[in-house]
Amino acid sequence: MTRHLISIADLDRAALLALLDRAQRYVARPGEPVVRNRSLEGRTVANLFFEASTRTRASFELAARRLGADVLNLDINLSSTAKGETVRDTVATLQAMNVDAFVIRHAESGIQRMIADFVAPHVSVINAGESHLNHPTQGLLDALTIRQHKGDFANLVVAIVGDIRHSRVARSASQALRLLGVKELRLVGPAALLPEDGVEGTRITSMDEGIRGCDVVMMLRIQKERMQAGSIPDAAAYHREYGMDARRLALLADDAIVMHPGPMNRGVEISDEVADGPRSVILDQVNNGVAVRMAVLETLLERK
Amino acid sequence: MTRHLISIADLDRAALLALLDRAQRYVARPGEPVVRNRSLEGRTVANLFFEASTRTRASFELAARRLGADVLNLDINLSSTAKGETVRDTVATLQAMNVDAFVIRHAESGIQRMIADFVAPHVSVINAGESHLNHPTQGLLDALTIRQHKGDFANLVVAIVGDIRHSRVARSASQALRLLGVKELRLVGPAALLPEDGVEGTRITSMDEGIRGCDVVMMLRIQKERMQAGSIPDAAAYHREYGMDARRLALLADDAIVMHPGPMNRGVEISDEVADGPRSVILDQVNNGVAVRMAVLETLLERK
Amino acid sequence: MTRHLISIADLDRAALLALLDRAQRYVARPGEPVVRNRSLEGRTVANLFFEASTRTRASFELAARRLGADVLNLDINLSSTAKGETVRDTVATLQAMNVDAFVIRHAESGIQRMIADFVAPHVSVINAGESHLNHPTQGLLDALTIRQHKGDFANLVVAIVGDIRHSRVARSASQALRLLGVKELRLVGPAALLPEDGVEGTRITSMDEGIRGCDVVMMLRIQKERMQAGSIPDAAAYHREYGMDARRLALLADDAIVMHPGPMNRGVEISDEVADGPRSVILDQVNNGVAVRMAVLETLLERK
Repeated sequence: MTRHLISIADLDRAALLALLDRAQRYVARPGEPVVRNRSLEGRTVANLFFEASTRTRASFELAARRLGADVLNLDINLSSTAKGETVRDTVATLQAMNVDAFVIRHAESGIQRMIADFVAPHVSVINAGESHLNHPTQGLLDALTIRQHKGDFANLVVAIVGDIRHSRVARSASQALRLLGVKELRLVGPAALLPEDGVEGTRITSMDEGIRGCDVVMMLRIQKERMQAGSIPDAAAYHREYGMDARRLALLADDAIVMHPGPMNRGVEISDEVADGPRSVILDQVNNGVAVRMAVLETLLERK
Repeated sequence: MTRHLISIADLDRAALLALLDRAQRYVARPGEPVVRNRSLEGRTVANLFFEASTRTRASFELAARRLGADVLNLDINLSSTAKGETVRDTVATLQAMNVDAFVIRHAESGIQRMIADFVAPHVSVINAGESHLNHPTQGLLDALTIRQHKGDFANLVVAIVGDIRHSRVARSASQALRLLGVKELRLVGPAALLPEDGVEGTRITSMDEGIRGCDVVMMLRIQKERMQAGSIPDAAAYHREYGMDARRLALLADDAIVMHPGPMNRGVEISDEVADGPRSVILDQVNNGVAVRMAVLETLLERK
Repeated sequence: MTRHLISIADLDRAALLALLDRAQRYVARPGEPVVRNRSLEGRTVANLFFEASTRTRASFELAARRLGADVLNLDINLSSTAKGETVRDTVATLQAMNVDAFVIRHAESGIQRMIADFVAPHVSVINAGESHLNHPTQGLLDALTIRQHKGDFANLVVAIVGDIRHSRVARSASQALRLLGVKELRLVGPAALLPEDGVEGTRITSMDEGIRGCDVVMMLRIQKERMQAGSIPDAAAYHREYGMDARRLALLADDAIVMHPGPMNRGVEISDEVADGPRSVILDQVNNGVAVRMAVLETLLERK
């Protein structure tokens, strides 16, 4: 296992499976007692979120706390950055306060890798969202969710649908699914939003064709900015062409599952009846997210 | 006891008294060691404050922590709402992270009830302030404070003074006091700020008449917006007509107490000498607030 | 020991040394296990930061948590102050919630002293930065860092360089160093930024002359506002005249150390090669900051 988790691409299959196995032991469904221990007691995790995010920040915070770690939440925009301090100096300062792990989310690419190259040997960096490139804990929680529902990956046909070109979720998921050996991965969306490179998979611009017979459909959040930029039509037209709705559910394999990383644009990329229906595993994804982050934090921070 | 605490109106007299009794056991005056236990260890409380509030948020946070719970503070305005996520999806997401209780403050009415109807059976919703309608933990802490100073409620004359029409504090207090059987409840303020309905009590527009002989006077915070809207005169005139000052203290019963939910507009609805004087129990209210919230959280979240 | 820590000037030499000795026991360098105990279990520390500060707030928060205290972080600008509540009422309210210590940072002078005079006898106030006047925990961490590297103070020549006139860091450091009996203290900077009074030491406007033979050089952060106001030239000229760079390192005593309170303006008051070089003890200062704050909190809050 690497010391950091910057990208799913850094993991080999064994490391990925070890993380999924450990995460599975931390899964507690709502209403069940959460799994807690003191394995990270005395360790400090700093959440450096340069992009706001309720859900991912909360998920990491709960994961760290349930392992007994102290958590610092730093709102970077409101403090040092206003004074012109560099990100490196902010990190060096927190490291000097005995922070053991940095959970970093940033709209630009390369910040996490730069910090990982910079921190002391005992410090870990976890990527909590990087530009359109990486969101490895999302890739892990997606893989865990699929495994819980489907067991083996070897026979699965998976479609990722939407703005794949700008999606770190799609990149991390596709890397994880390749490593786990899915049978077929389809990338479905309007031509302008399909990736030119960097994501393996069959490009398909027809939604009906793309999802036909799929075991797993991963819907992506569509950014309103894409509509304003003219890359895609308006919300209603997008929903008609690429939205997952009840009619399209019938095109999928029996027992297919529908995923979404959240937050959802209901009525745009996904209809209410699908989001809240029996095929949706969207809240399982959220639930698994805490377990996956516990597994990642514990694996990276265990006393060597 | 209900599973949620949305309104004092949901409680019967026995449930209300049980909460006051339990809260009393959690009271520790400043300088005394706080009461702490681990009864909510492993449970997670999320503070969802759509309206900013230092004091109420801090009070709930300390209450939850002193019972051993984990607390998530979520600044809703800065995160998911900006992305257009619905409140329901935010709550569903946090519930999927094993949040056990939502403490919700919102300027609009009905959000707490809607969420209570929506969450899973093991999850509780606590109303931390709802439009002009409900603020049940405030009603409880007011009742507890009165009981500490007055013992029995049956012979009490209580006046609520100020902008009762727009006050959730007044509504929750009046519901609690009715349930506890106060002898007389007076609603005192300018005609434009007295409630048309929804609050029981004798309407009185003369302050001197309204507070004469009272055992308890609950002053309400006056919103500056009311002055701008012309519902009331300017601050000086309001103080003259409806402010609690030293002269008016003499109109009250012997040993009367003066209350205020805070934050105070000193020199408007209350003078410094009253706020800081011997009749004031305003800081007892704050102190009791933590105890009441501990009692509420523990009662709602005890493993059934 | 006083009950509060408002200014280094409130300490005598014995109290200062006792704090340094205690802090030394809490020092854990990055990568070593942090020192933790439960000496402040059940106590509540409120961080009242009226000025944003990532590093100082985080340092106090970690210090309090590593001693087992509960910590409330209050963003004052966004809540009660917006409603017009006075600082005194905010403090009184939090004290009524059994807050035991207030850590206060404020751009104006006198707030901390006013609050210290106002709180109950069991409550402590710690100054976390006050106008241009006081930053006592910074003075302590500077003293601790010098002691770690130099041992005895009696033979030390120390230069403080930069905007001393507006610097609380300089004032607190100079008070600490006087108390510890340094041989010579020099105040180096442009005439417009040297203090008229209130800071003892030899005024020197030539950087080369001021730092020659020094054992310790404390660089101060230069505020961009000073340049706009015309008190100092632009950043490049300032760096030429008062920046610490490799050439100037050669003017110092052998084994001299270079300090900076952070956040640094790299390329202005300090060059990268000095900041990141072997003479820099800047990250030791940060590390010692947590230890010093643990010592201060524990000393002030120990059950009497």
